[in-house]
Amino acid sequence: MAQITASRRVRRTPFTPGVEAAGVRGYTVYNHMLLPTRFGADFVDDYHHLKQHVQVWDVACERQVSVKGPDAMRLMTMLSPRDLSRLRDDQCFYMPVVDREGGMLNDPVVLRVAPDHFWISIADSDFLLYVLGVADALEMNVTIEEPDVSPLAVQGPRADDLMARVFGDEVREIRFFRFRRMAFQGHELIVARSGYSKQGGFEIYVEGTELGMPLWDALFAAGEDLNVRAGCPNLIERVEGGLLSYGNDMTRENTPYEAGLGVFVNSQADYLGRAALERRPIERMIRPIEIMGDVPPCDRLWPVYADGRRVGQVTSAAFSPDFQTGVAIGMIDATHWEAGTELEVETQDGMRRALVQSKFWI
Amino acid sequence: MAQITASRRVRRTPFTPGVEAAGVRGYTVYNHMLLPTRFGADFVDDYHHLKQHVQVWDVACERQVSVKGPDAMRLMTMLSPRDLSRLRDDQCFYMPVVDREGGMLNDPVVLRVAPDHFWISIADSDFLLYVLGVADALEMNVTIEEPDVSPLAVQGPRADDLMARVFGDEVREIRFFRFRRMAFQGHELIVARSGYSKQGGFEIYVEGTELGMPLWDALFAAGEDLNVRAGCPNLIERVEGGLLSYGNDMTRENTPYEAGLGVFVNSQADYLGRAALERRPIERMIRPIEIMGDVPPCDRLWPVYADGRRVGQVTSAAFSPDFQTGVAIGMIDATHWEAGTELEVETQDGMRRALVQSKFWI
Repeated sequence: MAQITASRRVRRTPFTPGVEAAGVRGYTVYNHMLLPTRFGADFVDDYHHLKQHVQVWDVACERQVSVKGPDAMRLMTMLSPRDLSRLRDDQCFYMPVVDREGGMLNDPVVLRVAPDHFWISIADSDFLLYVLGVADALEMNVTIEEPDVSPLAVQGPRADDLMARVFGDEVREIRFFRFRRMAFQGHELIVARSGYSKQGGFEIYVEGTELGMPLWDALFAAGEDLNVRAGCPNLIERVEGGLLSYGNDMTRENTPYEAGLGVFVNSQADYLGRAALERRPIERMIRPIEIMGDVPPCDRLWPVYADGRRVGQVTSAAFSPDFQTGVAIGMIDATHWEAGTELEVETQDGMRRALVQSKFWI
Repeated sequence: MAQITASRRVRRTPFTPGVEAAGVRGYTVYNHMLLPTRFGADFVDDYHHLKQHVQVWDVACERQVSVKGPDAMRLMTMLSPRDLSRLRDDQCFYMPVVDREGGMLNDPVVLRVAPDHFWISIADSDFLLYVLGVADALEMNVTIEEPDVSPLAVQGPRADDLMARVFGDEVREIRFFRFRRMAFQGHELIVARSGYSKQGGFEIYVEGTELGMPLWDALFAAGEDLNVRAGCPNLIERVEGGLLSYGNDMTRENTPYEAGLGVFVNSQADYLGRAALERRPIERMIRPIEIMGDVPPCDRLWPVYADGRRVGQVTSAAFSPDFQTGVAIGMIDATHWEAGTELEVETQDGMRRALVQSKFWI
């Protein structure tokens, strides 16, 4: 592929100086911001390290949509198919959001940082604009903005050890998808046990660009003997673990049910997409797909066939060194989504045999 | 800079095979899609060719927001500070769009393709989501989607000659920012005299991915003796010409007045941002800035100072071979926006002397 071209529009992050000093080799763009994709010689190098040690990830591109004001809860309830009354004060709430037709607009994690103040930590779409459109049209009493908050992730089996050295042992007590406010250089930062890998770890919501590099440097200084490295979400590991990517694996064309997120559709309120989600049948669903043979880069949608008929698509794929097979995420029609179903996947390098799995690899 | 990493989320275009075959060397991401930034050895090589010959540009990333249905005109009127009653059937309407606070959300070009059907050709933000949020909140009778339409631009002094060979001499009669429906291989395509350069030319709204490469190939076959090349919006040329880039030069923080687009704020209707635009003072404005000395890549906002005080920012900059000076676009406070004002610009490579100009270079 060609080089990425710098501009102000493709924004640097508070951690970019650290990322560059660590020798970043690949970038993508996510929420109009640089997201590193590779530091090692290849994805496999980063993958093994992530599974054995601990990595610090610049995921500042997980931008926050701040929704604040007297109408904040009313607005959030209109957007959410998930029952927000169950959201606890220290909880990270995974919440697919849909339009009036039930189409997914994003799959953010929501934090209630104060009674009338939410942070929506978004995947790659300007979901802020939908929230703003609804609020503007209804003249709601609410302020919607993107604050100067940049998540930094610490992921891998040694994440607890590294974090405890910087934030103290209390960090070990944080439960999965819960957060606490922890001190760093006189500032209180939200630290959550979460992250876009299956190796365990934390996400630190760094408030204030100027704190970015001091925290980055503190983590690397504390972790030298833990073999800490700069890392990033790893394509192979996230596909093994079935971690979905909005824009890759599901889009506005899909409902949360199709994305396998039906368990998060339980609101009793009259949210905008409710009627559509009750009406639309579930005709396809996200499935783990094993691909035989070599796996080229999945840079486009791969049509999936059975008996010569189109029955779905694969949207993320990689060869897994640990499982020694091709691992993939696909959206497969109901007629062919049973585990064990044999399929054919059309890559840019030719057809591959494939098999629907019962579960992801981790 | 590092390489760009391929994924389905960063979408290929109908013309990507042609772009790759032409040896693209740089990409950016725009509306979740690949946008070439460089084909020659450097920006200067592409720049000279654009000004002397003719180029074919993959600008599929100028996605369309299709707004269709009985409420389409009502919805468009809510979004538009520009008087839509003046939009003619064959006209391309440059139309800044704002939120309830008057902040710019995008600066698209609007085409009315049928009485109840608009195409909003967008800059780099998911403006579709704002339109959808308004329509969903008010339960409007309108369908909002991104159609399979990919603009291809033909730009440069020989653009008329090349286009006439493919579409016939009638194409020469199209006036600036007007469009006609022209035939290509049995399909009717909208062809507009428009484009993101000051060198003249056209944008072809290619409806249907499968038409992309046949049209690309037809243009190159017809233009061999015209020295036609694959090209792309050129940083140097667009800064010389004062062509603004949403996300670089203005954002939601700015009003259309600040972006120098006050002439397009003339709607008499009760659009969403009206009260705010009537209330907010104009405290800063886009200005052409000459920068002395060498100009590093403007990959971040450059603060601008006068007498040691912050008075603005530069957001796009390049060294101009034709004008033999640094050319830049800045947002400068009212106290210092007069032509001839001396400024200092803080680049990542150090401070540069600068001067406010009375007009852009073309």
